[in-house]
Amino acid sequence: MAELLPLSPVPLYSQLKEILRTRILDGSYPPLSRMPSEAELGKAFEVSRITVRQALGDLQKEGLIFKIHGKGTFVAKPKAFQNVSTLQGLGESMTQRGYEVINRLRSFKTVPANAQVAARLQVAEGENVVQIKRARLVNRELVSLEITWLPEHVGKRLEKADLVSRDIFLILENDCALPLGHADLAIDAILADAELAGALEVEEGSPVMRIERLTHTADGAPLDYEHLYYRGDAFQYRLRIDRHKGQHS
Amino acid sequence: MAELLPLSPVPLYSQLKEILRTRILDGSYPPLSRMPSEAELGKAFEVSRITVRQALGDLQKEGLIFKIHGKGTFVAKPKAFQNVSTLQGLGESMTQRGYEVINRLRSFKTVPANAQVAARLQVAEGENVVQIKRARLVNRELVSLEITWLPEHVGKRLEKADLVSRDIFLILENDCALPLGHADLAIDAILADAELAGALEVEEGSPVMRIERLTHTADGAPLDYEHLYYRGDAFQYRLRIDRHKGQHS
Repeated sequence: MAELLPLSPVPLYSQLKEILRTRILDGSYPPLSRMPSEAELGKAFEVSRITVRQALGDLQKEGLIFKIHGKGTFVAKPKAFQNVSTLQGLGESMTQRGYEVINRLRSFKTVPANAQVAARLQVAEGENVVQIKRARLVNRELVSLEITWLPEHVGKRLEKADLVSRDIFLILENDCALPLGHADLAIDAILADAELAGALEVEEGSPVMRIERLTHTADGAPLDYEHLYYRGDAFQYRLRIDRHKGQHS
Repeated sequence: MAELLPLSPVPLYSQLKEILRTRILDGSYPPLSRMPSEAELGKAFEVSRITVRQALGDLQKEGLIFKIHGKGTFVAKPKAFQNVSTLQGLGESMTQRGYEVINRLRSFKTVPANAQVAARLQVAEGENVVQIKRARLVNRELVSLEITWLPEHVGKRLEKADLVSRDIFLILENDCALPLGHADLAIDAILADAELAGALEVEEGSPVMRIERLTHTADGAPLDYEHLYYRGDAFQYRLRIDRHKGQHS
């Protein structure tokens, strides 16, 4: 068994965290299994409850474990991820890999474009655009909230589309005959505010990966502007980047 | 002046937030300027202090404004961003666009590879690897903490390199004659734990964009494994993704 080094300059809780993280990642503690209790870990590693709690606290912040009040600490499932090396909708991308994607339509309405939406879609500020809010579930777990804005004449055509089980990208391409070209993305991290916490079913202040995405038609005209909010504890983006443009190894 | 609609189904604080956000983004409230006080905003929009506070609180969580105790609320500067459509170091990428990048070397040491590092670099667990921790500053502002692991024989060659002002990518390519090929990235959002909060000079629980990046040589061998932690309030990744692979518009 791995032992802690009391004389090391690395704090004991960091050493313990590293050992527990390795056991989680290598499957010694399998997904959704109950972790040993604080008392058991303290005894096994000959450290105080405070040290154990600090190590577990950090692992919880990393999303590797979660606590259920009165039941103990459990190993989190590995995060679902989407490969974004090419532009695909969540459904398209995940179902290819055997995941089930379903959406909850939260709202579909016509709204006046605010300054940001107007600039991106190249319409006048205050001009009507269609705004669609959907929560998206991967294998029945809530992973994201997507807010989509489309020019009104395009958006109107989605009113009767199956927004519960289909990607907007595929509806645009297949039903509206608008082939897509490229998208520009900006990615950062924010904390969930009250509205986002409600939609994503997380606590306020939880970590959220935010994507601003503007998708263009194959002709290069802006078509579909989105704010995507992914639960930090449930989802990640993966992609491959080449050192030299045009090189695809 | 924009007016709030008391009879709208959209809560007053959301309406106010939207108006203030627009004014920030369109420059009506310029970067680093002081926002009107809560009392002034309440009077101007005929809403309660609680409503104003809720709107400002959300804008603060989004990183659009910040508060200085006793001085008031200020407009944040636009986030710095790196274009990651091709694989570049932060320095390379940002200096091309006129930013100054400098690094604080926090540690340079030889450590035994943990399970994760060993798997990525294809070395045996426990085998020596070089670990480099650097905090990175863009225009003298702290934006990220980078932890880099390199196989020992490569890492040793960086011991005398100028890690304060140069990218590791460029040192590998130019000094070590190891041309780079592609990198695999995973991106998600986490909260800063105590260690990260200290290194990034943010409060614990602040939003952090986390990147796991494995960079390969042009021959496709894994060479440089990194954990990059970016301040959510200070930095974003931008990239262009094409609908069809190989299409570069």
